[in-house]
Order: sequence, then structure tokens, then C-alpha cells
Amino acid sequence: MDLAQGIVKAAALLGAGLCMGMGALGPGVGEGFVAGKACEGIARSPENASLITRTMLVGQAVSESTGIYSLVISLLLIFST
Amino acid sequence: MDLAQGIVKAAALLGAGLCMGMGALGPGVGEGFVAGKACEGIARSPENASLITRTMLVGQAVSESTGIYSLVISLLLIFST
Amino acid sequence: MDLAQGIVKAAALLGAGLCMGMGALGPGVGEGFVAGKACEGIARSPENASLITRTMLVGQAVSESTGIYSLVISLLLIFST
Amino acid sequence: MDLAQGIVKAAALLGAGLCMGMGALGPGVGEGFVAGKACEGIARSPENASLITRTMLVGQAVSESTGIYSLVISLLLIFST
Amino acid sequence: MDLAQGIVKAAALLGAGLCMGMGALGPGVGEGFVAGKACEGIARSPENASLITRTMLVGQAVSESTGIYSLVISLLLIFST
Amino acid sequence: MDLAQGIVKAAALLGAGLCMGMGALGPGVGEGFVAGKACEGIARSPENASLITRTMLVGQAVSESTGIYSLVISLLLIFST
Amino acid sequence: MDLAQGIVKAAALLGAGLCMGMGALGPGVGEGFVAGKACEGIARSPENASLITRTMLVGQAVSESTGIYSLVISLLLIFST
Amino acid sequence: MDLAQGIVKAAALLGAGLCMGMGALGPGVGEGFVAGKACEGIARSPENASLITRTMLVGQAVSESTGIYSLVISLLLIFST
Amino acid sequence: MDLAQGIVKAAALLGAGLCMGMGALGPGVGEGFVAGKACEGIARSPENASLITRTMLVGQAVSESTGIYSLVISLLLIFST
Amino acid sequence: MDLAQGIVKAAALLGAGLCMGMGALGPGVGEGFVAGKACEGIARSPENASLITRTMLVGQAVSESTGIYSLVISLLLIFST
Amino acid sequence: MDLAQGIVKAAALLGAGLCMGMGALGPGVGEGFVAGKACEGIARSPENASLITRTMLVGQAVSESTGIYSLVISLLLIFST
Amino acid sequence: MDLAQGIVKAAALLGAGLCMGMGALGPGVGEGFVAGKACEGIARSPENASLITRTMLVGQAVSESTGIYSLVISLLLIFST
Amino acid sequence: MDLAQGIVKAAALLGAGLCMGMGALGPGVGEGFVAGKACEGIARSPENASLITRTMLVGQAVSESTGIYSLVISLLLIFST
Amino acid sequence: MDLAQGIVKAAALLGAGLCMGMGALGPGVGEGFVAGKACEGIARSPENASLITRTMLVGQAVSESTGIYSLVISLLLIFST
Repeated sequence: MDLAQGIVKAAALLGAGLCMGMGALGPGVGEGFVAGKACEGIARSPENASLITRTMLVGQAVSESTGIYSLVISLLLIFST
Repeated sequence: MDLAQGIVKAAALLGAGLCMGMGALGPGVGEGFVAGKACEGIARSPENASLITRTMLVGQAVSESTGIYSLVISLLLIFST
Repeated sequence: MDLAQGIVKAAALLGAGLCMGMGALGPGVGEGFVAGKACEGIARSPENASLITRTMLVGQAVSESTGIYSLVISLLLIFST
Repeated sequence: MDLAQGIVKAAALLGAGLCMGMGALGPGVGEGFVAGKACEGIARSPENASLITRTMLVGQAVSESTGIYSLVISLLLIFST
Repeated sequence: MDLAQGIVKAAALLGAGLCMGMGALGPGVGEGFVAGKACEGIARSPENASLITRTMLVGQAVSESTGIYSLVISLLLIFST
Repeated sequence: MDLAQGIVKAAALLGAGLCMGMGALGPGVGEGFVAGKACEGIARSPENASLITRTMLVGQAVSESTGIYSLVISLLLIFST
Repeated sequence: MDLAQGIVKAAALLGAGLCMGMGALGPGVGEGFVAGKACEGIARSPENASLITRTMLVGQAVSESTGIYSLVISLLLIFST
Repeated sequence: MDLAQGIVKAAALLGAGLCMGMGALGPGVGEGFVAGKACEGIARSPENASLITRTMLVGQAVSESTGIYSLVISLLLIFST
Repeated sequence: MDLAQGIVKAAALLGAGLCMGMGALGPGVGEGFVAGKACEGIARSPENASLITRTMLVGQAVSESTGIYSLVISLLLIFST
Repeated sequence: MDLAQGIVKAAALLGAGLCMGMGALGPGVGEGFVAGKACEGIARSPENASLITRTMLVGQAVSESTGIYSLVISLLLIFST
Repeated sequence: MDLAQGIVKAAALLGAGLCMGMGALGPGVGEGFVAGKACEGIARSPENASLITRTMLVGQAVSESTGIYSLVISLLLIFST
Repeated sequence: MDLAQGIVKAAALLGAGLCMGMGALGPGVGEGFVAGKACEGIARSPENASLITRTMLVGQAVSESTGIYSLVISLLLIFST
Repeated sequence: MDLAQGIVKAAALLGAGLCMGMGALGPGVGEGFVAGKACEGIARSPENASLITRTMLVGQAVSESTGIYSLVISLLLIFST
Repeated sequence: MDLAQGIVKAAALLGAGLCMGMGALGPGVGEGFVAGKACEGIARSPENASLITRTMLVGQAVSESTGIYSLVISLLLIFST
């Protein structure tokens, strides 16, 4: 492996780490906010628990998507370069 | 691969990682806020659950768009350079 | 490719990544705030749902614009240099 | 292209990316705040929806201006150097 | 162009980018706060809409001034050096 | 081991550390918010404790997922390079 | 131009950019807060609109002063070195 | 030990420190929030103290998990490289 | 000008820029807070407008002082070195 | 001691410092929040002081655990390398 | 001037800039908070205006002291080295 | 002292400074929060002052522990290397 | 002065600047909070003005102490090295 | 003084500055919070002023301790190396 290839590979792996790291920070906080508000909502109106849980899961799923994009980009950076 | 090409490729891959990372952080937090407020809203007025869920999904979709732009730029940086 | 061209191209690609990354962070949070407030508003006065949704979409469209500027600058940095 | 020109061009392109990135972050958050407050306002007094929407659009337009300055400076940095 | 001139020009262009970027971030957020509070105010007392809108525009104009200073400094850094 | 391989390996290991570090920060805060709100909710309506606990666990599990993605990427960066 | 002069000039121009950038960020946010509170105040007591507007303008003028100091220092850094 | 191995080992140890540091910061704040809310809850409804304590411990355990992932990655970085 | 003098002068000018930049950020935000609270206060009790305005101006003048210190240090760094 | 060993040892010691520093910051803030809420709770319902104190201590103990992980990793980095 | 003296002088001047910059940021925000609360207090109880103004000035004077320390250290760094 | 030993010692001392610095920041803020809430609590129910003070001291002692860990690590980094 | 002495002196002076800068930032904000709360308190109960002022001054004096430690360390770094 | 000793001494002095700087920032803010809450408490229940003042002083003393640790470490870094 010559030096140029080494720099490319190193940048890819460092980038993968930063990408997944920041990509886990954002959705991790966001989804926690969703679930926290859902718990608060169920405590206030338990008769709508299934409705709120469903909304929570759908909302988290959308928010999760950007985390999954990060995962995909990280895997691409690790394996395809 | 000579050194100049290596620096270019390395910058592209590092940039891809930072781009997707920050691009997942913002929408991840933002969409979590949407879904959290939607859960709160449904707990208060469950009879409008479908309306609120629809608004939540539309709002998240628009917010998701910037995350998808990041994904596109990241993929461009990885593959087309 | 000589070294000077490599540095230019590398800076362009790293800049594209940072530009789209930060440009997705801001509107992503901002649009999430809009949609969250819209959900809160519909829960309070569901009879105005269409009005609120329209305002939300218009407001998000304007906020999206800066995200699109970032996308344009990123694409320019990737392709036209 | 000699090395000095390369450094100049590289700085211009990296600066363009940072400029548009930060210039999208600020107005993106700010305009989101405007639109969120407008949705909240319409939910409270729907009979003034047109007034509030007009104010929102005017306020966002002024806030957008700094984002457009960033776009202009970014384009200048990319093309005129 | 010799190396010293290249460093000077490069610093000027990078400085222009940072200047306009940060100079758009601050007023962008600040003006968004103004317009958001104006929308909130009109929703509460719509009969004073013209007064509030006038105050909002004057206040935003003053806040815009620092953004314009940044624009001026950025243009000076790009063209006069 | 030659120098290029050393740089690649070093970048992978540093990236693994940053990835898991940031990937633990986000979900750690987010899940704490969920559990805090769940405790608050049970104190207000203890008769729904099982419902709230179930929602808390489901919400935390989804939020945990991005932390697990970080773990996976970190392990990949350590072992498969 | 020899190298030492180049470094001095480069530092002056980069410093000018950072100075105006940060010097626009602070007053931009601060003046936005003033104007936002003024709009809120006029909505509550419109009969004192002229008093509030006058106070807002005086307060913003003082806050603007630090932004103008930054402008002066930036111009000095660009032209007098 | 040659230089390449030294760089790899150094990166692993620095990465281990950053990983555990950030991985302790997040859960440390998050779990503190949980326990704080639990104390608040018990003060309000002491008759549910056991329920709240149980929920607190379960919630903290899940939040602790990301801290433990960090510990595992740190130990791996220290010993297995 | 030899290299050592160049480094000294460059550090002085960069330091001047950072000093005035941060020194404008703090008082800019702080004085905005003063003026915002003054507007809020006049809206609540307009009969004390002159008292509040006087207090606002005195308070801003003291807060301005640190901004002026920054200006003085910046000018010293630019001219007396 | 040759240079490679020196770099390894230096990275280990710097990493140990950062690890314990950040690992003390997080739990330090978190545990302070717990104890603050416990004091607030006892002021409101002093008859449950022992219950609240017990919960506070258990909650702090769990939160302390990540601080202790940091201590362990720091000691490992100092002594075992 | 030889190189070692140049580095010392450069560090002193850069340090002076950072010292005064950060030393103006903190008291600038803090004193703004004092004056803002004083305006709020006078609006609520104008009959105690002189008492509140006196307290504000004493409190600001103490807070100003750390800003003056920064000024002294900056002047020492500029002139006595 | 050869260069490798110098780098190791330098890293240890810099790490000690950062470790104690950050390790004082966190508990310093956290313990301030505890004592602030304790003062608030005593003002509300002075008859429980001894109970609240005891809880405050116990809570601060636990929070202090991470600060002491930092002290220990710093002393180890200074003396045992 | 040889190079090694120059680096030591330079580090001492830069460290002195950073130390006093950050050491003025913290107490500056903290003491501002004290004085702001004191003004608020006097506005609410002016008959206790002397008590509150005394408490404010004592509290600020303790908070000032860390600022004075910074001053001492800065002076030591400037003069005794 | 040879170069290795110079680097060690330089790192110690820079570390001392950062240590005391950050170690003054945290307790400075925290103790300000304590004293602010104490003033608020005395305004509400002046008959308990001595109790609250005593609690404030004890709480600040504990919070001060981490600042004093920083002072000790800084002095050790300056004198004993």
C-alpha cells in the first residue's frame, strides 16, 4: 500500500467514525424527546395510550431514518473504498 | 495513485462523513421535536389524532428533506470523485 | 494532476461537505420547530387545521430555501471546479 | 497552476463552503422560529390568519436577506477568484 | 504570483467567508426572534397590526445593519486586496 | 507494518473512539430524558405505571438503536480493518 | 513582498474577518431580542407605542456601538497595515 | 517498536480516552436527570416510592448501557491492539 | 522586516481581531437584554418611562465599558507594536 | 526510550487526562441536579426525607458509575501501557 | 530581534487579545443581566428606584472587577514583556 | 533528558491541567445548583433547615467525588510519570 | 535567549492570557446573576434591602475568589517564569 | 536548557493556565447561582436570613473546593516541574 492510498483509506475510516458518531447523537436526543413526551402524554390521558404509542413509534421511525442514513454512509466509507 | 489524487479523494471521503454526520444531527433533533409535540397534542385532544398525525408526517417529511440533501451530497462525494 | 490542483479540488470537496452539513443542521432544526408548533396548534383548535397546515408549509418552504442554497453551493463546489 | 494560486483558490472554495453553511444555519433556525410562532398565533386567533401570514412572510423575507448575502459571497468566492 | 502574495490573498478570502458566515448567523437568528414575537403580538391584538409591523421592520432594519457591515467587510476582503 | 498501513489503522482506531464516544453521549442524554419523564408520569398517575413503563422501554429501545449502530461501526473499525 | 510581510498582512485580513463576523453575531442577536420585546410590549399596551419605540431605538443604538467598534477595527486591520 | 506501530498504538490509546470521556459525559447527565425527576416524584407522591424507584433504576440501567458500550470499546482499544 | 518581527506583528493583528470580536459579542448580547427588559417594563408601567430609560442607559454604559476595554486593547495591539 | 514508545506513552497520558476530565464533568453536573431536586423535594414534603435521601443516593450511585469507569480507564492508561 | 524573542512576544500579544476578548464577553453578559433585572424591578416598584439603581451599580461594579483584571493582564502582556 | 521522554512528560503535564480544569468545571456547576436549590428550599420551609442542609452536604459530597477523582489523576500524572 | 527558553516563556504568556480570560468569563456571568437576583429581590421586598445587599456582596465576594485565583496564576505565569 | 526540557516546562505552564481558567469558570458560575438563589430566598422570607446565609456560605465553600484543587494543581505545575 503506497502513501496516497493510505491517506485515502485513513480519511474514509476517520470520516466513518465521525459520521456515525454525530449521526447517533442527533436522533438519540430527538427520539428521547419523543418518548419522554409520549410518557408524559400517557400519564395525562391513559385511555389514549395505544394512539400515543403508535404516534411515538411512527415519529421515531422517521427520526431514525437520518440515523440509518449515517449508518449507510459509514458502512460505504468502510467497505467500498 | 499519485499524492495529489490521494489528497482529493481523502478530502472527499472525510467531507462525506462530516456532511452526513451534521446532516443527521439537525433533522434528527428537529423531527424528534415534531413527534414529541404531536404526542403531547394527541394526549390533549385524541379526537384529532388523525389530523395531528398527518400534520406531523408532512412536517417531518419537509424537515427530512435537508437530511436527504446531505445523503445525496455524501453519496456524490463518495462515488463521483 | 499536479499538487496545486489537488489542493484546490480537495478544498472544494471538503467545503462542499461542511456546507451541506451545516446547511442541513439549521433548517432541519428550524423546520422541526415549525411543524411541532403546528401540531400543538391543531391540537388546540382543530377547526383551523387547514389554515395552520398551509401556514406551516409556507413557513417551512421559506426556511427550506437556505437549505437549498447550501445544496446549490455544494453541487457547484463538487462539479464546477 | 503554481502553488500560490492553488492556495488562493483552495482558500476561496473552503471559505465559500463555510460561509454558505453558517449562513444557512442562522436564518434556517430564525425563520423556523417565525413560522412556528405564526402557527401558534393562527391557532389562537384564526380570524387574523391573513394578517399573521403577511407579517410572517415579511419578517422571514428580511431574515432571509442575510442568507442571500451569504449566497452572494459564496458565489463570488467560487467564480470571481 | 509569489508565495507571500498567495498567503495574503488566501487569508483574505477565507476571512471573507468566515465573516459573512458568522455575520449571517447572528442577525438571522435575531431577526427571526423579532418576527416571531411580532406574529405572536398580532395574534393577541390584531387591531395594532400596523403599529407592530412598523416596529418589527424598524427593529429588524437596525439588527440587519450588522449583517450589512459583514457584507461590506467581506466584499472589501474579496475585491480590494 | 509500513507507514501507510499504520496511518490507516491509526485513523480507524481514533475514529472508533470518537464514534462510540459521541454515539454514547446522544442516546445517554435522550434515554435519561425518557426515564425522567416516565418517573414524573408515574408520580402523577401511578395507576398507569405498567403502561408508562412499557412505553418508556419501547421508546428507549428505539433510541438505543443509534447507540448500537455506533457500537457496530466502532467494532467494525477496530476489527475488520 | 517578502514572506514576513505576507504573514503580517494575512493575519490582519483573517483577523478582520473574524472580528467583524463575531462582532455581527453578538449585536445581531441582542438587537433582535430588543425589537422582539418591543413588539411584545406594543401588542400589550399600544397606547405607549411611541415611548416603547423610542426606548427600543435608543437601546439598540447603544448595543449597535460594539458592532461599530468591530467595523472600525476591521477597517483598520484591512487598510492601515 | 517501529514508528508505524507507535502511531497505531498512540491513536488507540488517545481514542480510548476520548471514547470513555464522552461516553461518561452523556449518561452521567442523563441518569442525573432521571434520578432528579424521581426525587421530585417521590416528594409529590411518596406512596408510590417503590414504583418510582423501580422505574428509575430500569430507566437508568438502559441509559447506562451506552456508557458500558463505551467502556467495552475503550478496553478493546487499550488491550486488543 | 525579518521573520521574527513578522510573527510578532501577525500575532498582534490576529489578536486584535479576536479581542474586538469576542469583546463585541458579549456586551452586544448583554445590552440587548437590558434594552429588551426596559421595553417590557415600559409597556407594563409607562408612567415610569423616564426612570426606566435612565436605568437602562446607566446599566448599558457600565456593560459597554468592557466593550471599550476591548477596543482599547485592540487599538494598542494594532498601533503600538 | 525510543521515539515511537514516547509517542505511545504521551498519547496514553494525554488521553487519561481528557478521559477523567470529561468523565468528571458529566456526572458532576448530573449528580448536582439529583441533589438539587432532592433538596427541593424535602423542602416540600419533609416527612419523606429518608425516602428521598435514599432515592437520591441510589440514583447518584448509578450516575457515579460512569465516572468510575472513567477513573478505571484513566488508571489503565497511566499504569498498564 | 531573534526568533525566540519573536515567539515570546507573539504569544504575549495573542494572549493579550484572547484574554481581553473572553474577559469582556463574561462581564458584558453578566452586567447586562443585572441591568435588565433592575429595569424589570423598577417597572414593578418604581418607588424603590433609587435603592434598586444603587444595588445595580454596586453589583455591576463587583462584576466589572474581573473585566478589569483582564484589562490589567492584557496591558501587562503587551507592555511588560 | 532525551526528546521522547520530554514528549511523554509534556503530555502528562498538559493532560493534568486539562483533567483538573474540566474536572473542576462540572462539579463546580453541579454543586452550585445543589446549594442554590437548598437555599430556595430553606426559604420556603425554614423549619426543615437542618434536614435540607444535611441532604445538601451529602449530595455535594457525592458530586465532589468526581472532582476528587480528577485531582487524583492529575497528581498521578504530575508525580508518577 | 535560546529557542527552548523562548518556547517556555511563550507558553507561559499564552497560558496567562487564557487563564485570566476564562477566569473572568465565569465569575463575570455568575456575579451578574447574583446582582440581578438581588435587584429582583429588592423590588419585591424593599424593606429588606440592606439584608439582601449584604448577602449579595458576601456571595459575590466568594464567587470573586476564583477570579482572583486566576489573576494570581496569571501574574505568576507572567513574572515568575 | 535543552529542547526536551523546554517542551516539558512549556506544557506545564500552558496546562497551568488552562487548568486555573476552566477551574475558575465552573465554580464562578455555580457559586453565582447559589448566591442568586440566596438573595431570592431572603427577599421571600427575610426572617430566615441568617439560616439562608449560613447555608449559602457552606454550599459555596464546598463548591469552592474544586476551584481550590485547580489552584493547587496550577501551582504544582508552575513550581514543582
